[in-house]
Amino acid sequence: MKISVAVSGASGYAGGEVLRLLANHPQVQIGAITAHSNAGSRLGELQPHLYSLADRLLEENSVANLAGHDVVFLALPHGASGEIAAQLPAETLVIDAGADHRLVYAGAWQEFYHSEHAGTWPYGLPELPIAHGRRQREELRTTKRIAVPGCYPTSALLALAPGFAAGALLADDVVIVSASGTSGAGKAAKTNLLGSEVIGSMAPYGVGGVHRHTPEIEQGLSSVAGEQVTVSFTPTLAPMSRGILTTATAKVAPQLLKETSAAQLRQIWVDAYEDEEFIHVLPEGQWPATQSVLGSNHVGIQVALDERTGRVIVCSVIDNLTKGTAGAAVQSMNIALGLEENLGLKQLGVAP
Amino acid sequence: MKISVAVSGASGYAGGEVLRLLANHPQVQIGAITAHSNAGSRLGELQPHLYSLADRLLEENSVANLAGHDVVFLALPHGASGEIAAQLPAETLVIDAGADHRLVYAGAWQEFYHSEHAGTWPYGLPELPIAHGRRQREELRTTKRIAVPGCYPTSALLALAPGFAAGALLADDVVIVSASGTSGAGKAAKTNLLGSEVIGSMAPYGVGGVHRHTPEIEQGLSSVAGEQVTVSFTPTLAPMSRGILTTATAKVAPQLLKETSAAQLRQIWVDAYEDEEFIHVLPEGQWPATQSVLGSNHVGIQVALDERTGRVIVCSVIDNLTKGTAGAAVQSMNIALGLEENLGLKQLGVAP
Amino acid sequence: MKISVAVSGASGYAGGEVLRLLANHPQVQIGAITAHSNAGSRLGELQPHLYSLADRLLEENSVANLAGHDVVFLALPHGASGEIAAQLPAETLVIDAGADHRLVYAGAWQEFYHSEHAGTWPYGLPELPIAHGRRQREELRTTKRIAVPGCYPTSALLALAPGFAAGALLADDVVIVSASGTSGAGKAAKTNLLGSEVIGSMAPYGVGGVHRHTPEIEQGLSSVAGEQVTVSFTPTLAPMSRGILTTATAKVAPQLLKETSAAQLRQIWVDAYEDEEFIHVLPEGQWPATQSVLGSNHVGIQVALDERTGRVIVCSVIDNLTKGTAGAAVQSMNIALGLEENLGLKQLGVAP
Amino acid sequence: MKISVAVSGASGYAGGEVLRLLANHPQVQIGAITAHSNAGSRLGELQPHLYSLADRLLEENSVANLAGHDVVFLALPHGASGEIAAQLPAETLVIDAGADHRLVYAGAWQEFYHSEHAGTWPYGLPELPIAHGRRQREELRTTKRIAVPGCYPTSALLALAPGFAAGALLADDVVIVSASGTSGAGKAAKTNLLGSEVIGSMAPYGVGGVHRHTPEIEQGLSSVAGEQVTVSFTPTLAPMSRGILTTATAKVAPQLLKETSAAQLRQIWVDAYEDEEFIHVLPEGQWPATQSVLGSNHVGIQVALDERTGRVIVCSVIDNLTKGTAGAAVQSMNIALGLEENLGLKQLGVAP
Repeated sequence: MKISVAVSGASGYAGGEVLRLLANHPQVQIGAITAHSNAGSRLGELQPHLYSLADRLLEENSVANLAGHDVVFLALPHGASGEIAAQLPAETLVIDAGADHRLVYAGAWQEFYHSEHAGTWPYGLPELPIAHGRRQREELRTTKRIAVPGCYPTSALLALAPGFAAGALLADDVVIVSASGTSGAGKAAKTNLLGSEVIGSMAPYGVGGVHRHTPEIEQGLSSVAGEQVTVSFTPTLAPMSRGILTTATAKVAPQLLKETSAAQLRQIWVDAYEDEEFIHVLPEGQWPATQSVLGSNHVGIQVALDERTGRVIVCSVIDNLTKGTAGAAVQSMNIALGLEENLGLKQLGVAP
Repeated sequence: MKISVAVSGASGYAGGEVLRLLANHPQVQIGAITAHSNAGSRLGELQPHLYSLADRLLEENSVANLAGHDVVFLALPHGASGEIAAQLPAETLVIDAGADHRLVYAGAWQEFYHSEHAGTWPYGLPELPIAHGRRQREELRTTKRIAVPGCYPTSALLALAPGFAAGALLADDVVIVSASGTSGAGKAAKTNLLGSEVIGSMAPYGVGGVHRHTPEIEQGLSSVAGEQVTVSFTPTLAPMSRGILTTATAKVAPQLLKETSAAQLRQIWVDAYEDEEFIHVLPEGQWPATQSVLGSNHVGIQVALDERTGRVIVCSVIDNLTKGTAGAAVQSMNIALGLEENLGLKQLGVAP
Repeated sequence: MKISVAVSGASGYAGGEVLRLLANHPQVQIGAITAHSNAGSRLGELQPHLYSLADRLLEENSVANLAGHDVVFLALPHGASGEIAAQLPAETLVIDAGADHRLVYAGAWQEFYHSEHAGTWPYGLPELPIAHGRRQREELRTTKRIAVPGCYPTSALLALAPGFAAGALLADDVVIVSASGTSGAGKAAKTNLLGSEVIGSMAPYGVGGVHRHTPEIEQGLSSVAGEQVTVSFTPTLAPMSRGILTTATAKVAPQLLKETSAAQLRQIWVDAYEDEEFIHVLPEGQWPATQSVLGSNHVGIQVALDERTGRVIVCSVIDNLTKGTAGAAVQSMNIALGLEENLGLKQLGVAP
Repeated sequence: MKISVAVSGASGYAGGEVLRLLANHPQVQIGAITAHSNAGSRLGELQPHLYSLADRLLEENSVANLAGHDVVFLALPHGASGEIAAQLPAETLVIDAGADHRLVYAGAWQEFYHSEHAGTWPYGLPELPIAHGRRQREELRTTKRIAVPGCYPTSALLALAPGFAAGALLADDVVIVSASGTSGAGKAAKTNLLGSEVIGSMAPYGVGGVHRHTPEIEQGLSSVAGEQVTVSFTPTLAPMSRGILTTATAKVAPQLLKETSAAQLRQIWVDAYEDEEFIHVLPEGQWPATQSVLGSNHVGIQVALDERTGRVIVCSVIDNLTKGTAGAAVQSMNIALGLEENLGLKQLGVAP
């Protein structure tokens, strides 16, 4: 029997991507799809690419409509999922693609999101190395509540975690600059996100340590490193719909720098991900492009040592809506349900 | 037991797209992948998005390497597939994604391609209405040789065929203007195809009835109409990697124009495609965007009657590499092998 | 002494482009710049590219603020300029970049714009051939009121007018398909114009003869032809900020088709524009790209005869905001003030 | 009498941009325009946007053709300008838009460019603060040889120089990540620069301190700081034709961090550039976009202090072909000739 799944927030970009993936998941049957202001519309009006679901109607975004499914995906604005999640049955697998349940420290939530903290759920980044040689996927096998990582944190944590897990990097001087496609900013109509404004243009935003993903990146890296990691994070907006390129740099531990070749350093990343189906440390000399992961759950990574500055530079590429949101959500669901981890996620990047 | 498939021309865009689709085809095992100048390379160097096939080596593009498979896909430059195809065993299913075997009239081939005609194979556009209420897919069930349609002809034929099949359109005044993404021009390095030249720019090319797809469009429409159809076709290059938007117009037969409402006219298209999984005549008032079919085998169509000019305007969108090339190839293979027509083709468009 | 100029609607795309050009006009001093909801803001907030005017404040969009200048540019939404124009002094040169004063027939206005017609002003397309070998610029030398053409009509009229002026084209079968950058749709925030929606995508809109520029194109061509011209016009949206590529086709008069070579036909266009500084019929074999006119008042044109269908195909490229709006406005101002026609308009296209 | 100017390398992107600017320079007369493999062609074939120069013929790129002009611009590949420059008369003003004469240390040249060093010329970045409160433009007033800065160094040096000139930044931990449009990679046809490859994609290259602009950035910052500055520099390729966004960060000197507010720190940049016509430190809260400088010589800058990490983050935007290459060349020419610095450079950015 198929797993019954509901998707809340189905008219937005994250919700649309969850549906795109679930539509080809062999074990899933899509139940209620709900929305707020768009309730009552045909899905095809709002998500015209979901042809096979075009005639489905969007229902009211209520607990009544969501309850009764085996799995509920929440793809709602920040601050909106806490309340609805609290009313869903404990035995329902709830997967929150929003930020509400990611942060451990309530203070960080309040500082960056200016509202009450909804509590912390297991973090849906299965490949993340955690203590004792384990991976984060272990934490997901038995839970009924999963917080899907933010898109920037996914790209940043996968880039730097192997180095911190190996004790190779200094914790106090991490610099991360990311370029994201516009879909990361959502589907609400804003002048600064018009095609006319973003095409042919690059621009920074949220500069100076104020972007909300900063504490999430620090939390993840600190957990891996076993000490407090501070991060200077600058996001920029790139003229593309999808994709994140993250350039992450940290200082290599001085002792290691003396004793280790660039190739040995890079090998740490190769070893860390050699068993991971979705994460690819490219052959030396090849750098990843976001195009290579478009629409897929894959991650491309490359590592270089800058011997002049003693810094490692790691570049990672993801699709912000797939591995950065909906793909991680489906992957986490698979784990929590005991399914094969790649079900519904086998498609490769759409390039060129 | 799985079907063994070889792909010739695996380093180009068409070959890469065939591999992308086959990689998730449940009945297929990918055998030889061959190339010309890139033989010996890892596939991952040339097609970095095909992560699951990255370590496969490209072999020499020889008959010896291709023979012995159940199916051979040819994704070669125009004029190159005729010779190699002639040497493959008669029982091998050979699917040519190039132009060599599409045209019926050797004279048209010589006029537009300036070489010797390689002969005509059944045309791989399964949904095309042909005589006696039949579809082109009937022609594919028993053949071992299939010519995949050109990308522009696919979009143009699917747009206008229902009208001609119904006798609703005049044959002597068809005007078609198409906008294509740059991948349609291939992967050979040319200055006029550099990102710097095409980003932020629209430009026509092959204007004045000289584009090679003109006789293919006329051949297809004439076959459907049962009389000679002449077409003014203008292709343009759009600043996107993939996608074709075709705007096709024809004069409505005068008698019909008097007796028929716009809604009745449009219904001809709705009826023609109501049983087709991949072709979608959108609800009235909704116009298709190429984004909605990106990376998928789907086709979006809308129809309007311009009563001032007595013209029907039909807009269609496809992904030139998927439904326009590799998707049609795989769909045709499925038919010829007696498989479900949508195997390997279930993924939806990657939007936004 | 410099000419004092006011710009109404300075926060939008058309108003911004008028200011960009005027900022480098050697005879102009920019006086009041006004806006509606943005009154009180620094211009630099709304038009960050206008660095030299960044500290200017936007004033209320009132007659009081606009009156008292030698020239007033109106860059307002459709229907908004009629009322304000009526209150400006008769001796003020008023140049309306909106649609309100373009159409001659009140009925056409009402059918397409659904409001009361504000009257007709001389049409600001100086190069348009009109009766008796004259050009439209003659009409602009003595007027105090100028209606700037729509962007699509500019590209379509300049493409086809030479053929109609020469009696070479049939009036009853014109087909025009245009691709426009997104800035033509304005700066109001709408979901369908978000970068995420338009990047990587082509889509039609206003199909079936319902776009508001249709009667304007027909009016212009009819005036040139001396008979009623009907036009099938389809606009499409392209993934770029600026630029229009228009593909315009018409049937060549049968007698001419018999007696004339393709080169002779093309020569009609060469001759028509040989004295025009801003309009360029390219050498044979070269087709225009919108990139070549970006940010400039120039127009690129090429002409081909399709002998199979008896159609001439003319492709033209403009920058919709420059020659398509603000450039035409400034050029018309120059003429009406007796200045050199190219003042403030000498910059070349920004390519690549 | 006008200044006679020759442009060598007129078929490439840098040469084309020099010509675009010179075409509207009121004191300049364009003499010889030369090219290598394209000699003999009409300029209009190769630079179709330069309509007013379209019928000019490209001459052989020889000393004989270049000598005899007041000014010669060299827009040649790296390593090609040294030899030709050495043969030009000493009294000719020679402005090299290539890299050959930028670096002071021959060893750095050899390490990064693998050829013999051609010697060092005064650096054409007029706004750069140098010792004793002076600017680099002082060095340009009397020279006959000018080395135009690289595009990335221009954006990086203008971003960080005020902080180093004020002694506010630590020299040993600078991290710079830049995103550039594709025109920075030149006009030679390469597969990885095809529109199909770059549209919709971000990718890093030259990672790990190996990009050739690294020593140039370090040289410039060291000169300003009066001590050796080391830089981790990562360039990335963005899906746009033009523009560079540079995100540059450095640690603030600890004493200053204690005593200074974020506003006071930012004021250092405001003060440094308040008299500079082309450089704009934006009002607080506004971040620059590359679109705002497209086709112009302007530079947008913003500064933020990240108090968590003690880092200042400075973002700068330039047009890589204008301020990053040809604009700097023309500006430097104006200075060396005693002309007003902004002649030929008054046009504003083309936005949206």
